Amino acid sequence: MTYNIAILGASGYTGAELIRLIAGHSSMTIKALGGNSKAGQQMSEVFPHLRHLDLPALVTIDDIDFSGIDLCFCALPHKTSQEVIAALPKTLKIVDLSADFRLRDPAEYEKWYGNPHAALEQQKEAVYGLTEFYRKEIAAARLVAGTGCNAATGQFALRPLVAAGVIDLDEIILDLKCAVSGAGRALKENLLHAELSEGYHAYALGSTHRHLGEFDQEFSAIAGRTVQVQFTPHLVPANRGILATCYVKGSADEIHATLQKAYSDEPFIEVLPMGEAPSTRHIRGSNFCHIGVVADRVEGRVIVVAALDNLTKGSSGQALQNANLMLGLEETEGLMMAPLFP
Amino acid sequence: MTYNIAILGASGYTGAELIRLIAGHSSMTIKALGGNSKAGQQMSEVFPHLRHLDLPALVTIDDIDFSGIDLCFCALPHKTSQEVIAALPKTLKIVDLSADFRLRDPAEYEKWYGNPHAALEQQKEAVYGLTEFYRKEIAAARLVAGTGCNAATGQFALRPLVAAGVIDLDEIILDLKCAVSGAGRALKENLLHAELSEGYHAYALGSTHRHLGEFDQEFSAIAGRTVQVQFTPHLVPANRGILATCYVKGSADEIHATLQKAYSDEPFIEVLPMGEAPSTRHIRGSNFCHIGVVADRVEGRVIVVAALDNLTKGSSGQALQNANLMLGLEETEGLMMAPLFP
Amino acid sequence: MTYNIAILGASGYTGAELIRLIAGHSSMTIKALGGNSKAGQQMSEVFPHLRHLDLPALVTIDDIDFSGIDLCFCALPHKTSQEVIAALPKTLKIVDLSADFRLRDPAEYEKWYGNPHAALEQQKEAVYGLTEFYRKEIAAARLVAGTGCNAATGQFALRPLVAAGVIDLDEIILDLKCAVSGAGRALKENLLHAELSEGYHAYALGSTHRHLGEFDQEFSAIAGRTVQVQFTPHLVPANRGILATCYVKGSADEIHATLQKAYSDEPFIEVLPMGEAPSTRHIRGSNFCHIGVVADRVEGRVIVVAALDNLTKGSSGQALQNANLMLGLEETEGLMMAPLFP
Amino acid sequence: MTYNIAILGASGYTGAELIRLIAGHSSMTIKALGGNSKAGQQMSEVFPHLRHLDLPALVTIDDIDFSGIDLCFCALPHKTSQEVIAALPKTLKIVDLSADFRLRDPAEYEKWYGNPHAALEQQKEAVYGLTEFYRKEIAAARLVAGTGCNAATGQFALRPLVAAGVIDLDEIILDLKCAVSGAGRALKENLLHAELSEGYHAYALGSTHRHLGEFDQEFSAIAGRTVQVQFTPHLVPANRGILATCYVKGSADEIHATLQKAYSDEPFIEVLPMGEAPSTRHIRGSNFCHIGVVADRVEGRVIVVAALDNLTKGSSGQALQNANLMLGLEETEGLMMAPLFP
Repeated sequence: MTYNIAILGASGYTGAELIRLIAGHSSMTIKALGGNSKAGQQMSEVFPHLRHLDLPALVTIDDIDFSGIDLCFCALPHKTSQEVIAALPKTLKIVDLSADFRLRDPAEYEKWYGNPHAALEQQKEAVYGLTEFYRKEIAAARLVAGTGCNAATGQFALRPLVAAGVIDLDEIILDLKCAVSGAGRALKENLLHAELSEGYHAYALGSTHRHLGEFDQEFSAIAGRTVQVQFTPHLVPANRGILATCYVKGSADEIHATLQKAYSDEPFIEVLPMGEAPSTRHIRGSNFCHIGVVADRVEGRVIVVAALDNLTKGSSGQALQNANLMLGLEETEGLMMAPLFP
Repeated sequence: MTYNIAILGASGYTGAELIRLIAGHSSMTIKALGGNSKAGQQMSEVFPHLRHLDLPALVTIDDIDFSGIDLCFCALPHKTSQEVIAALPKTLKIVDLSADFRLRDPAEYEKWYGNPHAALEQQKEAVYGLTEFYRKEIAAARLVAGTGCNAATGQFALRPLVAAGVIDLDEIILDLKCAVSGAGRALKENLLHAELSEGYHAYALGSTHRHLGEFDQEFSAIAGRTVQVQFTPHLVPANRGILATCYVKGSADEIHATLQKAYSDEPFIEVLPMGEAPSTRHIRGSNFCHIGVVADRVEGRVIVVAALDNLTKGSSGQALQNANLMLGLEETEGLMMAPLFP
Repeated sequence: MTYNIAILGASGYTGAELIRLIAGHSSMTIKALGGNSKAGQQMSEVFPHLRHLDLPALVTIDDIDFSGIDLCFCALPHKTSQEVIAALPKTLKIVDLSADFRLRDPAEYEKWYGNPHAALEQQKEAVYGLTEFYRKEIAAARLVAGTGCNAATGQFALRPLVAAGVIDLDEIILDLKCAVSGAGRALKENLLHAELSEGYHAYALGSTHRHLGEFDQEFSAIAGRTVQVQFTPHLVPANRGILATCYVKGSADEIHATLQKAYSDEPFIEVLPMGEAPSTRHIRGSNFCHIGVVADRVEGRVIVVAALDNLTKGSSGQALQNANLMLGLEETEGLMMAPLFP
Repeated sequence: MTYNIAILGASGYTGAELIRLIAGHSSMTIKALGGNSKAGQQMSEVFPHLRHLDLPALVTIDDIDFSGIDLCFCALPHKTSQEVIAALPKTLKIVDLSADFRLRDPAEYEKWYGNPHAALEQQKEAVYGLTEFYRKEIAAARLVAGTGCNAATGQFALRPLVAAGVIDLDEIILDLKCAVSGAGRALKENLLHAELSEGYHAYALGSTHRHLGEFDQEFSAIAGRTVQVQFTPHLVPANRGILATCYVKGSADEIHATLQKAYSDEPFIEVLPMGEAPSTRHIRGSNFCHIGVVADRVEGRVIVVAALDNLTKGSSGQALQNANLMLGLEETEGLMMAPLFP
């Protein structure tokens, strides 16, 4: 059986990544592509790398007939997404890739994103889409909220440790290095090749990045107390990949064992042998996440490093993984491609 | 049914690319990986991006039992390859990715590669592996010689034009821009990131590049007369991709029509609409080749541009395409993945 | 003695490059920086790499008092530049970096740039700023028109050859590879790091690039007949540098000797030994131009390759070289810094 | 007056950087270039970007006549450097760029570098070359030991804070992002463009990097107690630049004020306004170091970020700054060039 798929926001990078992945999926067919700003264009114009595929043209979202659609991916900007989703059929299965349904508390949403939430009803039913930790809820959900790509990386490194209580919850530092596609197709001077290449810098310092809302929500819920991590993202001159270097306090052996146990059956999470650390070059273009643990020379200090591709495991790959669960398909379908190296 | 595959030279880039592709192939299983210099190592050490796959460890070629192998890919350096292949079972199907069996005339081989050929018997039976033009011969072959990646790109742009006689055969210039993975994993100063990035240059100027042997052989054979193209490769700071800018003389419309007709049924060759030109970013990581035709302001001058991924369509993807034919499988099996962009 | 300098369009790349160079100049002081869109900002905000310099804040052009200014650099977009320059004091020495005064024939200007020229009077007095060939005229000029960066590169490779009549004037092909800073700070999707890096393509194919107006004007003037070169620029993933690969017909030895003779006394033009070819990585950040000559295997065909930094020798370095001449200073003042490698 | 300079190890990146800088120095002349592995070659062959300079050919170190040399830069690998320096004239002024004379305690040297020190006498007289903090000692020294490039970056961010006692000495984390030229011209697979570009990773995790010896020595000496920072370097795909993100505990305002006061008269150290953070793209190719301070959302936690060019301020620029002091010249001579951007 083949499921009919719609993608809203198909002219952005996560939209294109969804199409790349679904093109290799055995039981999904793309029936509609929505993108208001480029409506009327063929995908081969918007993304010539998809030229070989037989895809519907881009249309405005209003022009999509959702009656035959089994599942809809929303790859729209936040705020737009909640407005669009509020107007979609109430029975349509939806995987949202925006930030709009990640935070369960509307006040937290407003605090981090600056506007009151406009789809409170949908927000209530939304399930947080970190597949490995919400598998059952996702399978039963109508609306799944894809996680932030930074938030996913940090949680893969730290969730089992917070849950097991094997690290000091008051001393967690996440130093993230993020590739530029995470900023989307936005036209900003600092994203130009001439400005970005050959340089790197920290941004959103002082723990002001919006993905902190997710860390706060999830880590505090697991720990049963307030947990506030320190989180500094850096922009590096590469297109794909997040490397999260996490500084924690605990026993390196216990931390490694906890991660190994947590992920022993996971198809996409690989815990490296003790003392090894991952590289983004080894997960590029794939749905895999590599995690390493190294003890510091100072007793009781440990570095946990996680690497994933922000466009795949960090957003569109995760979204497809969730969609597979929601449709009762094999969770790994369309997602087992090997990374692209070099 | 599943075919058993061996890969010799599995610690190089084309070897790794073969494994990446075969990992997504429905009826091939990798049974042996040969690599003398890294024998004894696991592939997860040599290529951590393949860590998720269940692969045999690297062994010396002598340690491989070929009795259960259906097809062997040789991704060894030239000269080594002919020596190894001469010693392999005479009934084993082989796809060679080196330069050793591309030239049919041993004198031409010696002229371009500097040593007398050491496997003349095998050379006689080898079929030139440019799939789209030797499909029938490849399906019937025991030994197929993969083409040079530059040679493939130039031929996709020009072969139908030479065959149809629609361009001036004495005035063909190929200006190629090649990514660095084409140079392999060789340890050379000029391939270091610090030296290569942010700069570009022409090399092998004066038409001294070895792939000219293939152009001479193939174009002259098609034309029934000596054809000597002028060919200048450039090394650009990117990892994958060849862009061939071909300067020819003829009618742009006739040239475009000739290419469209030649490739109308080809699954991997896309001729763009008249006046459009391809980019390597739109074929990266895929087996597709995009070709564009543009008329110059000077009447009778035409630019034909072809783009492909040197590691995929230019070598390992081509090799798998040929292997599919040799094993009676669907030619496109394992090769339809979309390009990786961004 | 110190000359007072104004720079209009100081918030673009060529403006910033002028400031970088003048910061090391012994007898120029920057007195005014004009930039309408960012007026009111400090240069340390617009270009933090200039933070250590004591520079005037950006102001609107109307707010600049030109009475104490000895020389003004205009690094404004074309069309804007002619309007601004038409309104500047008629005695002010000006080096314009835009395209507005490069073409002597107003009809040619309109053909390539699409609008009628709005400063015909100034256009008449403007001198074409290719220093090495218009030295005397530049020294005496009030208004000098900086050349196109591609046009400069191609002319350095070919002007002496056209003048000496040692190449076939009907068979000249220029295949240029250009870094991205040549496109300026414009916000376009294809200039984003995520889109540009890791890929390359030809643009303005069919000899439609505006710099052809300069080639036509200059080569035809030298040759005393119409000369129409074929010119295809390519965008490569690097920030600085133009590599011009020129395919010509003639005697390699004669061509090499002609170039050596033409540039034997030039401080910035280096002709490499016969058979060697330049690389952009060896001129980055400098005012040097390297030129190489190689004979093709086909008798009578020759490749001439020139490399320069588009922001330095291709625009702002050239502009300063011209300003030095106009002010009676040493031509090389402020321009002898070595390239930055790696 | 002009001083005669020798550079040993002139075929590596720091050697080439010294030549680039000295080429713009008003009172130094390069009289000898030593490089055993490339002895006999011209610098234009080894580093074509220096082609325009009139430089002596490379010779073996034994072939250099040091009698007329005023100062010698040693840019040799560690271990080799101490052996060579032990044999140089005892009165020759020397700036060493290797690791050999950075650690005052021979046992510490042996612990971090694995071999007993072979020039104990010279080690005793060596002065640690962090100019801003050892100015007087350097001016009087015969032998100055250039610092590690990572060590310099971290110390610029933290030394004044350790000295003033405004941060918790037991809770210092340095997360460094380093460009690839810091690894030198070594031929290693992971430094190839195809492997390094588009990916990033942490290395020497667990605080095992050799530059920790310098941090331990210097911070402990200032604090008057043992200080052990946690230090994790990362390799990022760029050629120049170190970004040190330092996680400390204290008052952001006090930290910022301490740094501002410490560096208020320094020509090369720029403390950014409170809340701003530096980028490596804004110091590339220059001798400047930019430092920023940002308060974290969690009270009492602060991020200090420092950026410098590893080849300039991190090694060869620092070396020249020290040489200027040793020769009684203006400290900033030859070092005030603006950064190269873009």
